[in-house]
Amino acid sequence: MKLYDEKMPAPNPRRVRIFLAEKRLTVPLERIALASGAHKSPEFLRKNSLGQIPVLELDDGTAISETVSICRYFEALHPEPALFGRTPVEIGLIDMWIRRVELHLSAHLSQVWINTHPYTEAYCARMGIVRYPDFGEASRQRLLDRMIWLDGEIAGRNFIAGDAFSMADIATLTILDFAGFVGIAIPEGAANLKAWHARISARPSAAA
Amino acid sequence: MKLYDEKMPAPNPRRVRIFLAEKRLTVPLERIALASGAHKSPEFLRKNSLGQIPVLELDDGTAISETVSICRYFEALHPEPALFGRTPVEIGLIDMWIRRVELHLSAHLSQVWINTHPYTEAYCARMGIVRYPDFGEASRQRLLDRMIWLDGEIAGRNFIAGDAFSMADIATLTILDFAGFVGIAIPEGAANLKAWHARISARPSAAA
Repeated sequence: MKLYDEKMPAPNPRRVRIFLAEKRLTVPLERIALASGAHKSPEFLRKNSLGQIPVLELDDGTAISETVSICRYFEALHPEPALFGRTPVEIGLIDMWIRRVELHLSAHLSQVWINTHPYTEAYCARMGIVRYPDFGEASRQRLLDRMIWLDGEIAGRNFIAGDAFSMADIATLTILDFAGFVGIAIPEGAANLKAWHARISARPSAAA
Repeated sequence: MKLYDEKMPAPNPRRVRIFLAEKRLTVPLERIALASGAHKSPEFLRKNSLGQIPVLELDDGTAISETVSICRYFEALHPEPALFGRTPVEIGLIDMWIRRVELHLSAHLSQVWINTHPYTEAYCARMGIVRYPDFGEASRQRLLDRMIWLDGEIAGRNFIAGDAFSMADIATLTILDFAGFVGIAIPEGAANLKAWHARISARPSAAA
């Protein structure tokens, strides 16, 4: 088994590393240098035709991509500590929160990143991806609005999906930290979200 | 238990109905008329602050939104037939495929729908949502490109995630049928995808 990985600022590989740290699991890593385009090489595209990392390659050659899917694989192999929930209600609510932060925070953040950030300009030009800066700027405001929404939603609880740490916290942490890298900080008024962020960032796994 | 629901063309409630039909489960439905804005009423926003359907309300008042999350709740309650996989590898790969069709097909389709379709124009105006038609049109081409990509990926197999029907087939069916409603048909050259679509559409659950 091998995990194809890359260091920050890429948020997705970090998500799997935090998950593994919380599970106290160790998986051999192989670095795929995004800057040199290694994720678009024919060899890597055979593992993931979308040319994205991370990818978990099993010993029989099966390749699982998508961060949350890799984590679900490990959760099924090593159920404790449960990070996707134990009871049907926990499983439903944790999945709901993973989806909410991905569809309502990460989706907007991706549009800011790809359409407006200086780092992606040369990449888009090389890949023939047209950028839409006005849409990207609108996405920035939508992301800020959703941070305020999330701040209200988590009032009175310690974790994103309820009273226990879960994959929803890992997903949210990596999204908000990448937003910070992109230049979009948690708004000053979002006191619940700021406190949550400080709490989760203090866990040893956050350094993964 | 009650499922807040709406009829076509809304693709998401249909996704849960197909899942329940495959599981041979019956859940009381309550229609939320999107056209009249019932999903934005204060009463409904207490169930889902995002104002989206479907929502599954449990007897204790717990509300689970997000289609896939509702289905995971039912899968945990009623494991057979398994639609999210049984082994760790099946669980990982089915989740990967759900995410792939959502992030690479549905995400583009949503942008076409919200930014270019005549049906959403008045809605956006009422809700203060600025439309970006050029971005929407680019998303149409990106969706078509991804349909061709998916066509290549499923060559030689009967189902989206492998050799068994799963939630990934349900997700893909509802996305492609909604694309058809929006006016984006499966491209002529995508023979694998067309054959898959005919096969899945012939299942009794597709009428749900």
